[in-house]
Amino acid sequence: MAGNSFGEFFKITTWGESHGKSLGVVIDGCPAGVKISEKDIQTEMDRRKPGQSKYTTQRKEPDKINILSGVFEGKTTGTPISMLINNTDAISKSYNSFKDIYRPGHADLSYDAKYGIRDYRGGGRSSNRETVARVAAGAIAKKILESFKIKTFGFVSQIGDIKCDNVVQSYIEKNPLRIPDRSKLNSMTDLIDSVRKQGDSIGGIIEIRSKGVPAGLGSPVFDKIDAKLAAAIMSIGGVRGFEIGSGFSIAEKKGSEVNDIILSKKGSRASFKTNNAGGILGGITNGNDLIIRFALKPTSSISKQQDSINSKGSKKKLKVTGRHDPCLCPRAVPIGEAMVNLVLLDCLLENQLSNIKKISI
Amino acid sequence: MAGNSFGEFFKITTWGESHGKSLGVVIDGCPAGVKISEKDIQTEMDRRKPGQSKYTTQRKEPDKINILSGVFEGKTTGTPISMLINNTDAISKSYNSFKDIYRPGHADLSYDAKYGIRDYRGGGRSSNRETVARVAAGAIAKKILESFKIKTFGFVSQIGDIKCDNVVQSYIEKNPLRIPDRSKLNSMTDLIDSVRKQGDSIGGIIEIRSKGVPAGLGSPVFDKIDAKLAAAIMSIGGVRGFEIGSGFSIAEKKGSEVNDIILSKKGSRASFKTNNAGGILGGITNGNDLIIRFALKPTSSISKQQDSINSKGSKKKLKVTGRHDPCLCPRAVPIGEAMVNLVLLDCLLENQLSNIKKISI
Amino acid sequence: MAGNSFGEFFKITTWGESHGKSLGVVIDGCPAGVKISEKDIQTEMDRRKPGQSKYTTQRKEPDKINILSGVFEGKTTGTPISMLINNTDAISKSYNSFKDIYRPGHADLSYDAKYGIRDYRGGGRSSNRETVARVAAGAIAKKILESFKIKTFGFVSQIGDIKCDNVVQSYIEKNPLRIPDRSKLNSMTDLIDSVRKQGDSIGGIIEIRSKGVPAGLGSPVFDKIDAKLAAAIMSIGGVRGFEIGSGFSIAEKKGSEVNDIILSKKGSRASFKTNNAGGILGGITNGNDLIIRFALKPTSSISKQQDSINSKGSKKKLKVTGRHDPCLCPRAVPIGEAMVNLVLLDCLLENQLSNIKKISI
Amino acid sequence: MAGNSFGEFFKITTWGESHGKSLGVVIDGCPAGVKISEKDIQTEMDRRKPGQSKYTTQRKEPDKINILSGVFEGKTTGTPISMLINNTDAISKSYNSFKDIYRPGHADLSYDAKYGIRDYRGGGRSSNRETVARVAAGAIAKKILESFKIKTFGFVSQIGDIKCDNVVQSYIEKNPLRIPDRSKLNSMTDLIDSVRKQGDSIGGIIEIRSKGVPAGLGSPVFDKIDAKLAAAIMSIGGVRGFEIGSGFSIAEKKGSEVNDIILSKKGSRASFKTNNAGGILGGITNGNDLIIRFALKPTSSISKQQDSINSKGSKKKLKVTGRHDPCLCPRAVPIGEAMVNLVLLDCLLENQLSNIKKISI
Repeated sequence: MAGNSFGEFFKITTWGESHGKSLGVVIDGCPAGVKISEKDIQTEMDRRKPGQSKYTTQRKEPDKINILSGVFEGKTTGTPISMLINNTDAISKSYNSFKDIYRPGHADLSYDAKYGIRDYRGGGRSSNRETVARVAAGAIAKKILESFKIKTFGFVSQIGDIKCDNVVQSYIEKNPLRIPDRSKLNSMTDLIDSVRKQGDSIGGIIEIRSKGVPAGLGSPVFDKIDAKLAAAIMSIGGVRGFEIGSGFSIAEKKGSEVNDIILSKKGSRASFKTNNAGGILGGITNGNDLIIRFALKPTSSISKQQDSINSKGSKKKLKVTGRHDPCLCPRAVPIGEAMVNLVLLDCLLENQLSNIKKISI
Repeated sequence: MAGNSFGEFFKITTWGESHGKSLGVVIDGCPAGVKISEKDIQTEMDRRKPGQSKYTTQRKEPDKINILSGVFEGKTTGTPISMLINNTDAISKSYNSFKDIYRPGHADLSYDAKYGIRDYRGGGRSSNRETVARVAAGAIAKKILESFKIKTFGFVSQIGDIKCDNVVQSYIEKNPLRIPDRSKLNSMTDLIDSVRKQGDSIGGIIEIRSKGVPAGLGSPVFDKIDAKLAAAIMSIGGVRGFEIGSGFSIAEKKGSEVNDIILSKKGSRASFKTNNAGGILGGITNGNDLIIRFALKPTSSISKQQDSINSKGSKKKLKVTGRHDPCLCPRAVPIGEAMVNLVLLDCLLENQLSNIKKISI
Repeated sequence: MAGNSFGEFFKITTWGESHGKSLGVVIDGCPAGVKISEKDIQTEMDRRKPGQSKYTTQRKEPDKINILSGVFEGKTTGTPISMLINNTDAISKSYNSFKDIYRPGHADLSYDAKYGIRDYRGGGRSSNRETVARVAAGAIAKKILESFKIKTFGFVSQIGDIKCDNVVQSYIEKNPLRIPDRSKLNSMTDLIDSVRKQGDSIGGIIEIRSKGVPAGLGSPVFDKIDAKLAAAIMSIGGVRGFEIGSGFSIAEKKGSEVNDIILSKKGSRASFKTNNAGGILGGITNGNDLIIRFALKPTSSISKQQDSINSKGSKKKLKVTGRHDPCLCPRAVPIGEAMVNLVLLDCLLENQLSNIKKISI
Repeated sequence: MAGNSFGEFFKITTWGESHGKSLGVVIDGCPAGVKISEKDIQTEMDRRKPGQSKYTTQRKEPDKINILSGVFEGKTTGTPISMLINNTDAISKSYNSFKDIYRPGHADLSYDAKYGIRDYRGGGRSSNRETVARVAAGAIAKKILESFKIKTFGFVSQIGDIKCDNVVQSYIEKNPLRIPDRSKLNSMTDLIDSVRKQGDSIGGIIEIRSKGVPAGLGSPVFDKIDAKLAAAIMSIGGVRGFEIGSGFSIAEKKGSEVNDIILSKKGSRASFKTNNAGGILGGITNGNDLIIRFALKPTSSISKQQDSINSKGSKKKLKVTGRHDPCLCPRAVPIGEAMVNLVLLDCLLENQLSNIKKISI
């Protein structure tokens, strides 16, 4: 309703502001008996955390995960899993100077219109820092999915106008930009360095792929898995576009060019000649790899001077200080993966109920 | 859950198959006191219905709307509005020959994987015919929104590789392709004619704009209005990409280029120098026009011969007969508008509860 | 939200007014592959329908069920099941004389306060006739549960101050009052006859029992199965009390008297020395029989003269004409059973997801 | 779904186990602009907390509330309010001796049947300690409702077979049993003392009344406010019965005796000659006082020896040690009030959307 929950079966509810005491998530609906430790989750937290390189914000947050409930003697109990991450390096005074000014590209004006009040420190709830809770929940989803051989990975496929041509999965986590194409590392880092020095920022594109996805996940109409993935990804701050399989390029194609020919099917596994559909037919997975892409806008916080207004409507000039990522893409990879894992697990659970033959007492 | 409901406040539940007795929708949560008639709704049904021109399927369906409940003496009563549309021109025998074959690009394989059974006639629930119920519900949403001066319209902005350059709103409903640029009508109709004669189909892009949208609609995190719009649009069969404002092109831009400068704000109305954000900041509308775009794949049903398999995994060849749109785009315009109207109304209702000052007894 | 849906997994949405064209229900989430026919459902409809004896309303409604979607070649397909029942014997003019008067005990005043408009004919949506849709949906739930050997039956245990002492299940459906104790039939029919002749009505108590319920259904906190049952039953018009197992009498007891001693447990089956808990521990079934009871008020529509006011606040006298049950209990038995079956099936489905060992791809 | 959330608009999600690190609640949907402090909430926490007298458990918990998010400069911001209470006096070793034995009257067996694992320490999630989070959330609901002059209070109306005859509201919070009838204090305290010394426990009945409730809250069918209240109250551990207004006694009455005659109505305020309906007509409040009652079983944990089995099915004898309330009733008063306040606020919010005249931009 008020929008801080995600998922129907493996349902997460997140809370917390960028400069509040802490942030966290409550998971309701995690099946009992899943082996989970804080270490499992911390691994994913560390992939997302700030301060990893000069291409990310310099805010230093250990993002240490605390499991407060729902896990007993190393296993989930079926009761809610509450996890908490403390804020330790918030510098709120950076925000005093524009607490009443609407920063361009930020949610200041729209929050004020909706709520008539906002925690201006670090963007409050609209901060990208909110995603820390998603990654914590996603880590548990990931662990469950991996036990079913469903594996998801993402990478940065484009920064500014530089596009990766090759995808070498093993290279992705070995470079700070999380790109899969070693030949583009220099030009991309140069580009980010250049915009950073200008007090500016740059956009890009992320791709996420899931392997081992069985056919049958998703629903026919409004809860098509592509609709759920789209909502999941568009709910990440700064995303402006989402596509699946051939995506927007399909507009220029004929049916005879893009219908994926089915080669074989055995149970929930199937193989196809091509993958223009991105692994989905009629809103339900077809057994092919799931492939999605999304576009991220350049960070709105830039230190270049900009025109704006304050809450009273008076014209103001401002430079957005504070510590910010010059490009949101590298840290968005684990966030996007988390959202995809949450959707996949939710659909996997839903699918247990699709046929009376699957039901037992 | 099982995915046939949409919306949280103005909640619709749709039902029905392409070749079943009828299709329909139940709306729960429509406020009482809305003046509504079958005629209001029929107008939108007629915009979507098949057989309007040679560029759409030749199936002849009057799509007559029947209001069965929830409206008394011309006004909604706050109780569920049930609406029903009968199927009158289904020719099910066309589907007998491939009732056991998985049509490429269709949901046959994925439905079988999920449910182990499917109504193969006309694609059953996966048929585009399912959208008739969305348009009926969307018509009521539209009427309510218009009473608040919120107006939404859509058009076909691209077919194949031909793009519209100008947007003349008044021209859209005057041509069978629903394009806003008269200069492209000939080339686009030629293209559709050409693929139709080849027994093929062609993709395209739709754009939808909403004017008069107040600032403040949407939510901060998972229920960002962009996330809701993305889910709404991606839930339409055949959509492969969704974008908002500058969309995918934003990936190549710098923050200083795309931050929309705010010029003024008064209540829930605001004006901006540009609209790269498509009318949304932090998941909440900012008072600018809402602008979205989506890509539609070419119709999967083509009469060209294709390779496939049957449910037992044996290789088969097939030609998909039946009556189909050579290009899904023109009829997708009212469907997309309906989904946008449903999202806007839902957010408008949600926003009544955002601030304690708005609550009264 | 607006309250016309029930259930989370096997979700029903009902619609329709007492004197409208028709009433119906859409079921979303029924697993595919369930064998179901209109005949299966009609059997339950006939148990609830009016005009069965002189102890029920004389309105003659065949309550013929029409399945419009979601069933193909005799089996459910996993898509929404839409069912419709036409109103054929509504006599709306009976209601003209008090269309602006608030009938005591009825929802006229409260509907007006909430919606500012109401369909006064036969009580509109507040009519007991609304339950026809619940019984239709419950019939499908019943069929599924019976395939798992879970059987539910109800009976009238009290009318006025006359209580049944014995429960002979086989007798229940053989008498028009649905009582389980033959020795009370004469006194109870006399009582009903007497109030009917006075233009009055009488209350009573219904008991419902479910056998074969496995341990493990329900949830720990807010969705305790007792909470769900209570909501399900209290949602039936005219119910004023709900209890489980020993119910209100437990207030006078000591722990040592009411703790049910567990004798054995094997899988999801368990046996107990007593059943004060009514089959539930901590909100989750314990394998014992489920036993609930609920109190029904006397029918509000009585032909005795009563004082009231109209919508403008002026004092009025009225006699409520129309055709009404002198005692709601006999027809409430299949309605209560339907609600219990809906809850049990919902919990059975939910329970498929409780442990990771139950999940498969 | 998994049942740890309550409410549709003012939605709370609770988490935590009796002997875990902490317990808490996340509220999603609290309107912005509500003045709230930890002190406001602590007042209610203190009313519920253990160790208040010898009639309650001797576990000493300060139950200090910590607000972690959603409140900024003393006001709610519309974002989720996360609150946390630490466990400080859990003595888990008391539970080692029966960690594998099913305590009679407890959820041990049913949790095992559902999840195959359970946190046996203090009952884990099934502990009454779980309600600490409900009271915290309820305190905010109470504060909002009081600003609309809606006031709720509860009391113990019966313990064992001793019933209160008079209701003197001002006396309730002045005695440790929370009874409204001074003349019954001695006999009731004697009764509790007596069962406590026997190592036994005793049941009772609670009544809750709400004043100032406007007409129009609730919904016609499944979300009748009585259904919501029933679910809310039955979700409290140990409740075995729920009734509204005249409750079960209405079974013995005639319609002419129980129809409440309406005297006047002005806006959402109305007055009646009697209140057999408990303030509700057709599932919607009628402007009369809301009156409900519920029966609480005697505490299941008794130190008398009892027969049982362990998880392998072997017969065992046990005495349930640990610290327990001899009578659950006094502390159940603020818990019941909290649930009623949560329901009332949820219905108040829902009612903002019932009529198009109430909607604005």
